[in-house]
Amino acid sequence: MATRPLNVGLIGGGGGAFIVHPHERAIHFDGTRRVVAGALHPDPAFAMQEAADWPYPIRGYPSYDELIAAEAKKPVGERIDYALIVTPNHVHFDPAMKCLAAGIPVFCEKPLTVTLAEANQLVAAVEHRKIPFGVAHTYLGHWTSRFARFIVRSGLLGDVRWVDAYYLQGWLADRTEDKGVMQAEWRVDPKRAGASCCGGDIGTHALMQLRYVTGLEVKRVRAQLETFVAGRQLDDHFTAYCELHNGGRALVRASQIAIGHKNDLGIEVNGTKGSLVWVQEEPEKLIIRLPGQPDRVYWRGAVAANDGFLKDLPAELMAEPNIPAGHPEAFHDAFARLHRCFEQDVRAYLDHQPFHCDGSQYANVEDGRMGIAFIAAAVRSHEQGGAWVEMS
Amino acid sequence: MATRPLNVGLIGGGGGAFIVHPHERAIHFDGTRRVVAGALHPDPAFAMQEAADWPYPIRGYPSYDELIAAEAKKPVGERIDYALIVTPNHVHFDPAMKCLAAGIPVFCEKPLTVTLAEANQLVAAVEHRKIPFGVAHTYLGHWTSRFARFIVRSGLLGDVRWVDAYYLQGWLADRTEDKGVMQAEWRVDPKRAGASCCGGDIGTHALMQLRYVTGLEVKRVRAQLETFVAGRQLDDHFTAYCELHNGGRALVRASQIAIGHKNDLGIEVNGTKGSLVWVQEEPEKLIIRLPGQPDRVYWRGAVAANDGFLKDLPAELMAEPNIPAGHPEAFHDAFARLHRCFEQDVRAYLDHQPFHCDGSQYANVEDGRMGIAFIAAAVRSHEQGGAWVEMS
Amino acid sequence: MATRPLNVGLIGGGGGAFIVHPHERAIHFDGTRRVVAGALHPDPAFAMQEAADWPYPIRGYPSYDELIAAEAKKPVGERIDYALIVTPNHVHFDPAMKCLAAGIPVFCEKPLTVTLAEANQLVAAVEHRKIPFGVAHTYLGHWTSRFARFIVRSGLLGDVRWVDAYYLQGWLADRTEDKGVMQAEWRVDPKRAGASCCGGDIGTHALMQLRYVTGLEVKRVRAQLETFVAGRQLDDHFTAYCELHNGGRALVRASQIAIGHKNDLGIEVNGTKGSLVWVQEEPEKLIIRLPGQPDRVYWRGAVAANDGFLKDLPAELMAEPNIPAGHPEAFHDAFARLHRCFEQDVRAYLDHQPFHCDGSQYANVEDGRMGIAFIAAAVRSHEQGGAWVEMS
Amino acid sequence: MATRPLNVGLIGGGGGAFIVHPHERAIHFDGTRRVVAGALHPDPAFAMQEAADWPYPIRGYPSYDELIAAEAKKPVGERIDYALIVTPNHVHFDPAMKCLAAGIPVFCEKPLTVTLAEANQLVAAVEHRKIPFGVAHTYLGHWTSRFARFIVRSGLLGDVRWVDAYYLQGWLADRTEDKGVMQAEWRVDPKRAGASCCGGDIGTHALMQLRYVTGLEVKRVRAQLETFVAGRQLDDHFTAYCELHNGGRALVRASQIAIGHKNDLGIEVNGTKGSLVWVQEEPEKLIIRLPGQPDRVYWRGAVAANDGFLKDLPAELMAEPNIPAGHPEAFHDAFARLHRCFEQDVRAYLDHQPFHCDGSQYANVEDGRMGIAFIAAAVRSHEQGGAWVEMS
Repeated sequence: MATRPLNVGLIGGGGGAFIVHPHERAIHFDGTRRVVAGALHPDPAFAMQEAADWPYPIRGYPSYDELIAAEAKKPVGERIDYALIVTPNHVHFDPAMKCLAAGIPVFCEKPLTVTLAEANQLVAAVEHRKIPFGVAHTYLGHWTSRFARFIVRSGLLGDVRWVDAYYLQGWLADRTEDKGVMQAEWRVDPKRAGASCCGGDIGTHALMQLRYVTGLEVKRVRAQLETFVAGRQLDDHFTAYCELHNGGRALVRASQIAIGHKNDLGIEVNGTKGSLVWVQEEPEKLIIRLPGQPDRVYWRGAVAANDGFLKDLPAELMAEPNIPAGHPEAFHDAFARLHRCFEQDVRAYLDHQPFHCDGSQYANVEDGRMGIAFIAAAVRSHEQGGAWVEMS
Repeated sequence: MATRPLNVGLIGGGGGAFIVHPHERAIHFDGTRRVVAGALHPDPAFAMQEAADWPYPIRGYPSYDELIAAEAKKPVGERIDYALIVTPNHVHFDPAMKCLAAGIPVFCEKPLTVTLAEANQLVAAVEHRKIPFGVAHTYLGHWTSRFARFIVRSGLLGDVRWVDAYYLQGWLADRTEDKGVMQAEWRVDPKRAGASCCGGDIGTHALMQLRYVTGLEVKRVRAQLETFVAGRQLDDHFTAYCELHNGGRALVRASQIAIGHKNDLGIEVNGTKGSLVWVQEEPEKLIIRLPGQPDRVYWRGAVAANDGFLKDLPAELMAEPNIPAGHPEAFHDAFARLHRCFEQDVRAYLDHQPFHCDGSQYANVEDGRMGIAFIAAAVRSHEQGGAWVEMS
Repeated sequence: MATRPLNVGLIGGGGGAFIVHPHERAIHFDGTRRVVAGALHPDPAFAMQEAADWPYPIRGYPSYDELIAAEAKKPVGERIDYALIVTPNHVHFDPAMKCLAAGIPVFCEKPLTVTLAEANQLVAAVEHRKIPFGVAHTYLGHWTSRFARFIVRSGLLGDVRWVDAYYLQGWLADRTEDKGVMQAEWRVDPKRAGASCCGGDIGTHALMQLRYVTGLEVKRVRAQLETFVAGRQLDDHFTAYCELHNGGRALVRASQIAIGHKNDLGIEVNGTKGSLVWVQEEPEKLIIRLPGQPDRVYWRGAVAANDGFLKDLPAELMAEPNIPAGHPEAFHDAFARLHRCFEQDVRAYLDHQPFHCDGSQYANVEDGRMGIAFIAAAVRSHEQGGAWVEMS
Repeated sequence: MATRPLNVGLIGGGGGAFIVHPHERAIHFDGTRRVVAGALHPDPAFAMQEAADWPYPIRGYPSYDELIAAEAKKPVGERIDYALIVTPNHVHFDPAMKCLAAGIPVFCEKPLTVTLAEANQLVAAVEHRKIPFGVAHTYLGHWTSRFARFIVRSGLLGDVRWVDAYYLQGWLADRTEDKGVMQAEWRVDPKRAGASCCGGDIGTHALMQLRYVTGLEVKRVRAQLETFVAGRQLDDHFTAYCELHNGGRALVRASQIAIGHKNDLGIEVNGTKGSLVWVQEEPEKLIIRLPGQPDRVYWRGAVAANDGFLKDLPAELMAEPNIPAGHPEAFHDAFARLHRCFEQDVRAYLDHQPFHCDGSQYANVEDGRMGIAFIAAAVRSHEQGGAWVEMS
């Protein structure tokens, strides 16, 4: 049945930002969401210009304060149904809190905040107000991420012993931040990025993948943060050895100086009975390996609900609207799945129905908080010469 | 600068069709195109119901005749800016001709028609009326397809000697058409699919990839069409040995009974100086191989305009709006690129400006006709025991 | 129990030959075979010099006639136990016939002969004299080749519908034969190589792999032989479309001008129930694909006799003396397996016991003859404009 | 020029040992080395029986003491030219010292000894007596290992920042040692294996690969040793974070509980200008990645001395006796290269010529000692809660 598309308001996204573009396409993807308003830049005049230059007509605002105030006054159906926050890290907390105060659901880029205190406040605010809140851990949107989560939880691999979760890049191998690359500039600046560059920016993705797929939490961590490029204040290489709550161990690794790696996020889960391997750059497949058996390479779209080995794949996984195997889904498809799932929760919220926001389909505010807590613990461990530090 | 989104009218697409969905997402992708109207099914009542069930409000029509008539009367800006034809093969010709007669640009699924006579008429109509006409050879939309085309034309590989172009699937390895799978039913029916199932449905994609990447035309062909599944009237396995206009040779191969192959479209071009390899299921990379040199694996988004080996990559290739390497683009991205390029031509047409429609960015009506001519020649060769048959 | 090593006599192999070296290592591999004599070159003086330069002391002979005559007079234990023929194609027949006449088992390089008449004579001579005769189709020696053969014969893939067997190389993409490369010189010379260069040299390997793995014979063939490099008399690119005895179809393809391909021999077998894929350059694995199931990647050494899917793997396959999975076997291991199996037959022959020589472990003289017959039919088809030609 | 084959004496290798078999084939490989004597087992009667059952006649000895004593009395040419020690770890030191005392060159399995004190003694003895001494770090024998070493030393990758060296296996994921698998039994026994199972057995290979390829030494280490399988006394999972002498960092990782990994040894070297990737299970290739350039995949045998990018490849690398690209070399080829290089040094030693034994072609006694020192430091770090421990 045809329904009106949801209205999305952008906070941030102008001035050459990268991440707004995948969000845009993800918002557009299904035809059931659209951008209607934006406070696209901290400079008011530039923000208005950027809004006027948006590919199609939207309401421009000179600041997010004005956007939130004005939109909150409009009736539902005209006003924005949710806000997308795509500002640098240090400008997540304030607009997110203000949206929540105005009753506007929020989809926020990661890392959630730059301090753990802020993250805790956001968690409290979301719990208090019971408003959908999503965090853009894109890679949970891959069908194979959800399939991996099902596999581990099904017990097929036994108890988890060891996890290798990593995210390796090479784009900061030299002083990219001095070459006018906005993406690099703010990431290496402690004021805008927080206490960690590499760990916070991409290590948190590796952690999120670990937590999502295994359902396990980190108990304590010992970490080494390295800065290989001279003159940089924050880490560009990050290694954390973790103890998990079930007694297992994990490496959470990240690098921005690993030349040749593009967005090499991956996870390997080793259990007492078998292992699985997933890599983001080839998101259509999941490999499962059991002793004395051939490697099983599963392809999205070609997994039967019962193949004599896997059983009882949940209807939700099987019914997923997607394209047939061999016509690959990729980054934008994952992004779109996040917004599609968030849309469902927002529509339920608007209808005063219960909504999930339980972390099973996209990361929620608590997932965001765990990323901040992990980085805080890792930085503390590093400062203490690599000692074990408990997660809080 | 914000501009109004283009309006797209759908002809076909209801009742469980597959291919309409990627088109939908591709239309939505950039926010600058939207579906506003549809004649979604040959059954008028069902067509109206399907339109009412569209994810967002559109104008439903009981038939494409009514859609074309009604839309043509609306002023530009309200009426559809182009029609997308996603009906079965035998219902391409009639609505396409009628759209052209009404001055409406057409983006049509392939194969263009079921007979060569119809294809010739369409070509003539397009030439006469000078209206943008696109054919949905999706895989031209991959950045790597366009990069491959540049590489061959740059002369890096020397003269083309041998091409292997193939499209292998396994989904018709048993009587899928008896299991209520609509996609299979019409494809194996000569009345709806034309003279070839496997060759027409997917062999034409392999041919298109060959023609697009090499710029070479097939001069003559000898072909074997096989029907492995009992009771089927059309081929499910297709092999054509081709002589190219430059004296080179090519295999154009297709199969629908190759279990384990999903949408395994690929091309290898062998020249006097080197070769390239491209496969659709891993569309982010292109491999170039020269004698005495390492294999060069190029990744979309990580290709420099001058890497000391490749030189003078055209600005068009470099400026392509896309996402960074390692965040893979895939099927929907390619689909969207087709509609994005077609949009540019439609906007030029609406502004009474020259438009390209020259086959360099998406397949045009002549490309569609060549597919039909190729299949006609292959069927004739098969009927003559595999004799050489000239392309017409 | 320790036994004396078998004595091998070489016919050919001097003067920069390539193929003698893998044979050498394969002979040495187990410590149970050694080279003791050689007629290494047609030039008598050079032959004697080459023998003196052999890495360890052997008996040199100025000609194979003298080698055969002298060795045949020695008592068993001192004389050569088998001859290895590694001369160019046109010098296989004569020494092979003479060895057989002298009661000396023969292991011969392929192609067996340059004419079908000679091949038929050799087959007759072997049948008449009942002497072990092997042909060096190396790739049968891979464990995975034997495993593939078992899989097809087990019925797991159903009836074979379509086979793609190919061997692609690039080393003759330009006039290698003019650069003093002995390997190239004789291969492109009709007098020394026979009626086909590419088909005879490597197409026969693809055919052998097809026949060994599927157990099916070619019924008739239509072929295209191309010569892409100007001035060459024989084909450097070979394509044969085959009808198999069971009604299935096969492509047997070979190229020597496919730049970037090194020794790209592979086979894909498609049956009514599933398919398998094997490639020589990654000989440790075999991929099996069934509908609705994950791809199964089997690794040599990691295959259980019963993994709940495969059953009843023959003891022979399981007991194979080899190294554990992940310590890859490769070309020399395959070569050594041929000589090891041939050694067993030679020892049985010396003990007046029955020996196998049935083509299940290495190619025999009949396999060699089939290669010659295939090329003869393909050449005939080519001469008749690609008409169907029956195998004889 | 033909020369007499070198005589090898085996110490250990009987009773179902695994590693003796690759050594055997490596000794046989070229025809210029052979096994002539053996003390194959600690049980004298069994040792004699095993010698009698050797595939070909050799001199059996009831103990290595007797072997060394008897062989040392024979004249050169009759006596063993070198000893191969393939006993469990704790039986390396004593026979090695005794061989050295008798003037017999030694090729010894790794790890060199079970204590650092012993290793130091062996180093001193070798230096004192100036006798060739090799340690069986097999993977240095791969052509690509040597090529990787050349690449790093050529400066192409700039200064080394970060190395990931790992060796992952899954065969000890459950209590393999209770199932009568001799290989597992002694490895998990502190008395026979030393202070570390996983680190000592395979972590040392990862370390050796790091040291060989980069030429860098570990300065200090912090390590975590885990025992995942209940009841085991030694580690089955090993993670060491290392500081290198040049200021770079490295992970040296090993696991024996990583199901699905067979012998997954690999190394990635990241420098300021580029990176390289090598994996043992695909030993034919080396990948080099530079910013803004395609991945370069180099294949053994297909590397030109000057491809316009690499320059001045040493003659030694180019002249390497091997088989053409695409006919893969693998484990036995690498093993054979070690013995072939050691043979050259032994022949020089016998001729009273200088010999190399400098670690450039195979590991020497100092390399062996570094492995022991590394494990000692790692175990100490682990005992101190993961503190930094300097290498000694």
